[in-house]
Amino acid sequence: MERPIAASVVKDVLAKMDISDISQATIRQCQAVANKLEEINNMRFIHLEIGVPGILACPVGLEAQKKALDSNIAHEYPPMGGIPLLKQNASKFLKAFADVDIEPECIVPTVGSMQSSMNLILECSQLNPEKDTILYINPGFSPNMLQAKIQGIKREAFDIYEFRAEKLRGKLEEYMSKGNIAAVLYSNPNNPTWMCLTEDELKTIGELATIYDVVVLEDLAYFCMDFRQDFSKPYEPPFQPSVARYTDNYVIMMSSSKIFSYAGERIGVACFSPKLYYREYPALREKYGLGRMGDNFVLTYLYAASTGVSHSAQYAYAALLGGAADGKIDFISEMAKYGQRAFRSKEIFERHGFHIVYDKDLDRKVGDGFFYTIGYKNMSCSELMFDLTRCGITAISLNSTGSAQNGIRACVSRLSSDKHFEEMDKRLGMFEQIQKEKQA
Amino acid sequence: MERPIAASVVKDVLAKMDISDISQATIRQCQAVANKLEEINNMRFIHLEIGVPGILACPVGLEAQKKALDSNIAHEYPPMGGIPLLKQNASKFLKAFADVDIEPECIVPTVGSMQSSMNLILECSQLNPEKDTILYINPGFSPNMLQAKIQGIKREAFDIYEFRAEKLRGKLEEYMSKGNIAAVLYSNPNNPTWMCLTEDELKTIGELATIYDVVVLEDLAYFCMDFRQDFSKPYEPPFQPSVARYTDNYVIMMSSSKIFSYAGERIGVACFSPKLYYREYPALREKYGLGRMGDNFVLTYLYAASTGVSHSAQYAYAALLGGAADGKIDFISEMAKYGQRAFRSKEIFERHGFHIVYDKDLDRKVGDGFFYTIGYKNMSCSELMFDLTRCGITAISLNSTGSAQNGIRACVSRLSSDKHFEEMDKRLGMFEQIQKEKQA
Repeated sequence: MERPIAASVVKDVLAKMDISDISQATIRQCQAVANKLEEINNMRFIHLEIGVPGILACPVGLEAQKKALDSNIAHEYPPMGGIPLLKQNASKFLKAFADVDIEPECIVPTVGSMQSSMNLILECSQLNPEKDTILYINPGFSPNMLQAKIQGIKREAFDIYEFRAEKLRGKLEEYMSKGNIAAVLYSNPNNPTWMCLTEDELKTIGELATIYDVVVLEDLAYFCMDFRQDFSKPYEPPFQPSVARYTDNYVIMMSSSKIFSYAGERIGVACFSPKLYYREYPALREKYGLGRMGDNFVLTYLYAASTGVSHSAQYAYAALLGGAADGKIDFISEMAKYGQRAFRSKEIFERHGFHIVYDKDLDRKVGDGFFYTIGYKNMSCSELMFDLTRCGITAISLNSTGSAQNGIRACVSRLSSDKHFEEMDKRLGMFEQIQKEKQA
Repeated sequence: MERPIAASVVKDVLAKMDISDISQATIRQCQAVANKLEEINNMRFIHLEIGVPGILACPVGLEAQKKALDSNIAHEYPPMGGIPLLKQNASKFLKAFADVDIEPECIVPTVGSMQSSMNLILECSQLNPEKDTILYINPGFSPNMLQAKIQGIKREAFDIYEFRAEKLRGKLEEYMSKGNIAAVLYSNPNNPTWMCLTEDELKTIGELATIYDVVVLEDLAYFCMDFRQDFSKPYEPPFQPSVARYTDNYVIMMSSSKIFSYAGERIGVACFSPKLYYREYPALREKYGLGRMGDNFVLTYLYAASTGVSHSAQYAYAALLGGAADGKIDFISEMAKYGQRAFRSKEIFERHGFHIVYDKDLDRKVGDGFFYTIGYKNMSCSELMFDLTRCGITAISLNSTGSAQNGIRACVSRLSSDKHFEEMDKRLGMFEQIQKEKQA
């Protein structure tokens, strides 16, 4: 790519795709715009928009899955609550890397964490007739917000940018004290900003969840991927931070997609606090004839959603979790490649006048991981997205993640070769040139 | 088993499981009751309750799936609309065995047909603000009714027993003419009765669906399993009957679970009438920014539900559908084993004074397939279920399927050896003995 794509060409593609504002486009739309422009201009974009694992699946999983297929499990419906080995190994894994005690019974496989959040949002909204609203700590993964919308469930949300540390308590209480919040949802490390909540912040969330009887839906898709600490030794501190240490009202959602690069097989686990799993809810009993939250998650919601999760993939995930807990799979150093890609690409952005938008966890610099957030001076999301697109770089806008800040989310997973970084440097040079021309 | 289980022992187990009326128990509860009684009495039940494939998975599928796992697809999110090969082969399969023309684009994999029906019910209820109700032609698969209940969607239903042939039109119009019916759902061959709708009945459903703008959700889980006809030759009549010949307002739900014994891997396809797939709905556009039914099914509903279907299982299902369409896999003669089991076990029931409840497709005897329905004189569902349980036979009650008739649904899938039939004969003898003692 030698010069920027003409603005008129980009505008034309957006119009044809029925996208009036590029900063409102979904990930899939951003991807489609880039693909169309690649075709028209016969070039390749730098793809920072989508969080596809850029590392091959862990072989231990593949071998276990093939072995399972050879042992006559494909014709049998998987047990609705999951195969025992997966439940046991997920329990061991959580103990080894998060120091959290959850008995195997309370851990349930789902078709990716998406199926966990979809059904937990729904179930939480039906636990108690007075609590009908899901609270999102934003910025966040926008499909989690879409899940409530699709299901007709009320939503509240705030941008955590201005409410970190001791300000978090007041902000959460503002919502929770109304009595209508059924659950609070966030990801940690955070998608899109890679901010990590501190132990104090998690404690605040946990304490308030107990006081106001709110379920915490904690998305740990990027489990142990805050590379500022060495989480690599099982059963030894430091441990993955979790709200589980501060309340009994939690469900941890853990995905195989990123930490084991197993996204294609669509498997995750919902890990219930045992108190919550066995808790009886009269509204559930009245509606479904079953009272416990865990029984209903398995036999009502997941049963109706897909009647279980790929039988063979359950064996794969069981082997991966078990291997990691036993110290035989070093998933963390494998994932650390993402951190290196983030470090290197952030430096290039910063050299061309960009800045990290969500830059700090209180007094610490935000870590280098799967995602980060980038702004350019006080440029709006729309303008920034548009000019980057002209330079052959695609990403998603912070607007679309529930953030009130100007900027984009960059995902480093597809920056897999030196060429990508060199090309990125060149294209960000073009971006600067466009800005200079605008001022002239 | 030498004598019936004491009534008090069965009552005790039901009480402990919080089941006040055995005829209201779900499949999973019936199974749990049988398992508990097996443990207490140290014997094995005849399991007629659950439709688990009793035949091993087709090897062509297993080989394709393992090959896919070896070719680096496990780390990649599957395409949301499905891999091209699966879409193409499902399109060929439908042409070969149902003589229905659906282009590959309009065929979308789902995590079993359960995920199809769950999301189609939801989407249909959001197509048009005036149409908010799903109509079920019962008896049916009770989880399909649960799916609407969970999602807070209104339901109507009627028992087709009294409304076959020319009576069907009046009954359907009674509901559809009110203007609030978004979709009508049925299975064909029917679960639980194995009745098959005639071409005339399908024509009636299709015509009314067009007139009243209702979407037909046609569950073909038991595709080509009406063994009274020879469907085995691809691209030659006779063809699997389908409403697709009589309206453009249909979605066919097709599962791999039964016809290819692939239940464990959780994969099916939703096959949209192209007119419906590409149809623009203003209510969808307003809500989701996308207007077409098909785009929303893929990018809104399925994306939020699970972000796609097991990548490797898609290759398995593609190979199975393609192999069948090419005449290389004779799935029908494999499935015909179920028909033989039905024939043999029905004879035993009838010899002991039972009768088939849903016995005819108009003037033809109902076929021998995966399920059938059984009654005993005018005994109620509860009493029949209770006495069969005492004799070590478990099934599900017709009550629980939306039927107004007295009887049970028997599934033959687990009657896999001569011993099962001999034991069944003996136990039904005990059942008769119990009835004689009651009269004495």
